[in-house]
Amino acid sequence: MKPVGTFWGVGVGPGDPELMTLKAARILTEVDWIFCPAESMQGTSFAARIVTPLGLPAEKIRPSILCMSRQGGAAQQGYRRAAEAIAAELRQGRSVAWITEGDPLFYSTFPPIAEEVRRLYPEVRIEIVPGVSSVQAAAARAGVPLAQLDEAMAVLPAAYGLERLPMLLDSCATVALLKVHSMIEPLLERLADFKNNIQTIYVEKIGTSEERLTTDLHSLRGQKLPYFSLVLLRRNQAGDTGKEIGP
Amino acid sequence: MKPVGTFWGVGVGPGDPELMTLKAARILTEVDWIFCPAESMQGTSFAARIVTPLGLPAEKIRPSILCMSRQGGAAQQGYRRAAEAIAAELRQGRSVAWITEGDPLFYSTFPPIAEEVRRLYPEVRIEIVPGVSSVQAAAARAGVPLAQLDEAMAVLPAAYGLERLPMLLDSCATVALLKVHSMIEPLLERLADFKNNIQTIYVEKIGTSEERLTTDLHSLRGQKLPYFSLVLLRRNQAGDTGKEIGP
Repeated sequence: MKPVGTFWGVGVGPGDPELMTLKAARILTEVDWIFCPAESMQGTSFAARIVTPLGLPAEKIRPSILCMSRQGGAAQQGYRRAAEAIAAELRQGRSVAWITEGDPLFYSTFPPIAEEVRRLYPEVRIEIVPGVSSVQAAAARAGVPLAQLDEAMAVLPAAYGLERLPMLLDSCATVALLKVHSMIEPLLERLADFKNNIQTIYVEKIGTSEERLTTDLHSLRGQKLPYFSLVLLRRNQAGDTGKEIGP
Repeated sequence: MKPVGTFWGVGVGPGDPELMTLKAARILTEVDWIFCPAESMQGTSFAARIVTPLGLPAEKIRPSILCMSRQGGAAQQGYRRAAEAIAAELRQGRSVAWITEGDPLFYSTFPPIAEEVRRLYPEVRIEIVPGVSSVQAAAARAGVPLAQLDEAMAVLPAAYGLERLPMLLDSCATVALLKVHSMIEPLLERLADFKNNIQTIYVEKIGTSEERLTTDLHSLRGQKLPYFSLVLLRRNQAGDTGKEIGP
């Protein structure tokens, strides 16, 4: 049965189209419209590129320009415009998906758009399809456990500020640091205190043809790094062999 | 082309078979053998139940009894026996997958089994397919963001000890607490200090027909809760409406 009038938040995974879930693939085939965040009129949408292999009709996909600046005003306006278009479709009983790379509740554009849609159309039925995150894909690529047994882990974006990093590394066996592109220098400074007790893995553009991985953070000094960049920090564990699992 | 002699760690997602990735479904169809953790000779394997809808030949699936006790000895023996059987197949050029619910690097049986397989067969090629975790599925079901913008999040099992929880809640907007089945009373005590500043969501057996969700932790007092149980703790945010996104 075709879903009617539902607003779907669909995570399409970290980049490799095969890391989409079966449910994401099904829902995107069934819905009337797929809205996605785009950075400009040229409509470069990472999420839309990920779903390309599904072979969906191009006219079903509607890129929405969101200004990703941290100044709230312009961003808010982009969300409002997108939410108005989505709510208009929902009111007519059509089903709409908003796609995001990774997971829709993990550093995604979905929560603010859903909030705005609900404000405009309070009766909306919202369903969420979780997706594999870039952190999980990076760990899988590097063969490094995120957490085992009674270990804790933390995730934080570099914009959060690195001053709490030592405290989090003290509590958590693994810390994933997101969007590190402009933070390699201050990160190396912070990590100097830990000497060789921390395993470091830098991953950029995971799951795309431009994917890059290195365990030598120093080699990144002075390089221009992309927004989709993260560092896994793993405290050396008593039982660890110091060798990654794979590949 | 059929993968040959590769050992695959495959996450099959949190419970709903549709939350498997396209890649997991493909690899499980292609490999020669699928090994999975089982709790007893009766072979009740949660991971194997998740892949049932793929309609794989039953004789391809080989449950391995792992003793899940925290005493290392018996557990180690179970892992060794499974790894020996896996390595024997790999040496003959056959491909083997080890399936785990959720993600293979997130509180899973895969890292210890992979380590043991590599010890027995150092030339092994290991590949890992990440999967949606129960934490992500719980957030999607509850309609609660895990992290947004410059927020941090943490995940810890109840066995870790709850004494660091206040510190982690101070640093992180969301804390996911796993395997809380025996920890509801001490958790409620810890949370009393936070008064009403923390949104709480308890989820058990997410993505199965026995799934249960409640925001009233007090109602769980005195109940026998299952192992697959978790609590999402989310600090009320300045911008939050206090209303979940969905469903």
